[in-house]
Amino acid sequence: MTGEADWIEFLRQRFPRGDAVRVGIGDDAAVLRLPGGRDLVVTTDLLIEGQHFLREAHPPRAVGWKALARSLSDCAAMGARPRWALVALAFPRATASKWVKEFFEGIGLLARRFDVSVAGGDLSIAAQIVADVQVIGEVRRGRALLRSGARPGDLLFVSGTLGLAGLGLACLRGRVASVRPRVKRALRVQFFPQPRLELARALRSRAAPTAMIDLSDGLSTDLNHICEASGVGARLYQEKIPAVNLPAPLARRLQTTGLQLALNAGEDYELLFTVPRARAPRLPRKLAGVPLTPIGEITRERRLVLVDAVGRERLLPPRGWDPFRRRG
Amino acid sequence: MTGEADWIEFLRQRFPRGDAVRVGIGDDAAVLRLPGGRDLVVTTDLLIEGQHFLREAHPPRAVGWKALARSLSDCAAMGARPRWALVALAFPRATASKWVKEFFEGIGLLARRFDVSVAGGDLSIAAQIVADVQVIGEVRRGRALLRSGARPGDLLFVSGTLGLAGLGLACLRGRVASVRPRVKRALRVQFFPQPRLELARALRSRAAPTAMIDLSDGLSTDLNHICEASGVGARLYQEKIPAVNLPAPLARRLQTTGLQLALNAGEDYELLFTVPRARAPRLPRKLAGVPLTPIGEITRERRLVLVDAVGRERLLPPRGWDPFRRRG
Repeated sequence: MTGEADWIEFLRQRFPRGDAVRVGIGDDAAVLRLPGGRDLVVTTDLLIEGQHFLREAHPPRAVGWKALARSLSDCAAMGARPRWALVALAFPRATASKWVKEFFEGIGLLARRFDVSVAGGDLSIAAQIVADVQVIGEVRRGRALLRSGARPGDLLFVSGTLGLAGLGLACLRGRVASVRPRVKRALRVQFFPQPRLELARALRSRAAPTAMIDLSDGLSTDLNHICEASGVGARLYQEKIPAVNLPAPLARRLQTTGLQLALNAGEDYELLFTVPRARAPRLPRKLAGVPLTPIGEITRERRLVLVDAVGRERLLPPRGWDPFRRRG
Repeated sequence: MTGEADWIEFLRQRFPRGDAVRVGIGDDAAVLRLPGGRDLVVTTDLLIEGQHFLREAHPPRAVGWKALARSLSDCAAMGARPRWALVALAFPRATASKWVKEFFEGIGLLARRFDVSVAGGDLSIAAQIVADVQVIGEVRRGRALLRSGARPGDLLFVSGTLGLAGLGLACLRGRVASVRPRVKRALRVQFFPQPRLELARALRSRAAPTAMIDLSDGLSTDLNHICEASGVGARLYQEKIPAVNLPAPLARRLQTTGLQLALNAGEDYELLFTVPRARAPRLPRKLAGVPLTPIGEITRERRLVLVDAVGRERLLPPRGWDPFRRRG
């Protein structure tokens, strides 16, 4: 068991999907069958000190916001409407009440924005701060958008700018001052990522995506998730990827590039989706206020290929976030 | 903020119950309103190394079992049928794969027993083992059993034997050998507690309980939860409490008594419920294979009173499990 994918495969075999489950382990969220005309979409996301946030660098309000945003973003990726949340939080005995209250303030800010009811949860003591947020959403029966529907020939789109959240984290780690507007914007995305719920709703009616996922782990890994689930490959055009623009001095200081951040940093919570080629012309450049960019296409060959500016191809390994692998 | 009750009150005010929530923060589980003739019951329970189990003493299969049992027991207490579970697990990088697999084995054993589908979850890395299990169940609209329905004059019943799980934990902590049948039985309850789902179902049709809770924190604290939620008090007859029978040498060695364990140790996951006095004669001594014992009555005066063998009364403070207070 060396990576998250191995564990997910183990769990998928250990817990076969029963009749009451339409989509089980291995997508952004599970889809449960209720009697009546609707499906429930449920998802749970851990947010752990040191893994997903830095205690000294992330304001408690941002930690609460992110804890809920992760699950709301999963709902967006499934094309579902989030309705209820449960919040489990464990923290060290010495944690200030103020920290905990501001954490819940962050949860409340985002919950109100999307009309999600915080209906319950659990509190406990732990050696480090651990939050686990579950969201339950609704979707019309059989209408959840899965990772598994991409077909050869489909065009691949992404929303927004990629690598901003990763740039924010790199600046926090490298103690880069947040006075520059670019750094400020990156920190805003790192602290308060926007779940693309309105965009997902608009996309469904405008473009009928065949597959969708949210970019939580990084483009290289999340695209791989779509390809594995759909049994296809993809060709990605490097020049088209809407990567964060990193001035050379900052790139040197942080020892990274905009492309690297876009491919492997994750946490942007933008949407990656596939659209039948015939439908693509109907997609506007911007939807629900978010830019949409075609970045490649789905192929029959089951491998991920990155094409550079002069047409050279190379294989693109999944190098995004995996809690069970140290970053290389 | 000194105890769990303060935090729950803070959260209840912070997150007022919306229209889509029938029962929000502060009961065993939340009750969500779905269009159609049913309510959803949802609950989430943290299980944390050092807090809820001892890494060296609890077999991984027992940790998985308990992680799910806590939420299933909440469903029983609400009179709901559990249908789906999500399992979030974080563990230190050095944890053996075998441990994790056996943890999920424990989850699977209990899930199969009650026909619960493990539909998804999350995995991550943390400094200590932290599990968070959510269960979603169903109940007929408006039929969830709450903590808030106890009325003065109702009789108070409890299922099973109390203090067994606490005895098991005390034996593990005190390194008492598990050869004696009594200790063996206590360890079985500590490791593999039985959620009283069949009993809850039978109780509903036989006795129409007015309030119900599962004994996770200990009789003194859980009875207090019922009384606070119902705006009532209770009188408890010490001699009637079905406390674990502790031989004097073992009690001395563990520095506790059967009564103390029954009142304050928790983790038995038996049911505590109130029944209108007129209904009580219909209750058999045993239901769904579990003994039922009348232990007291609900009073108008809002305080908990313990009556000893010779009729002396004393106030009973809630001294059960509270993660935010060190045990006295």
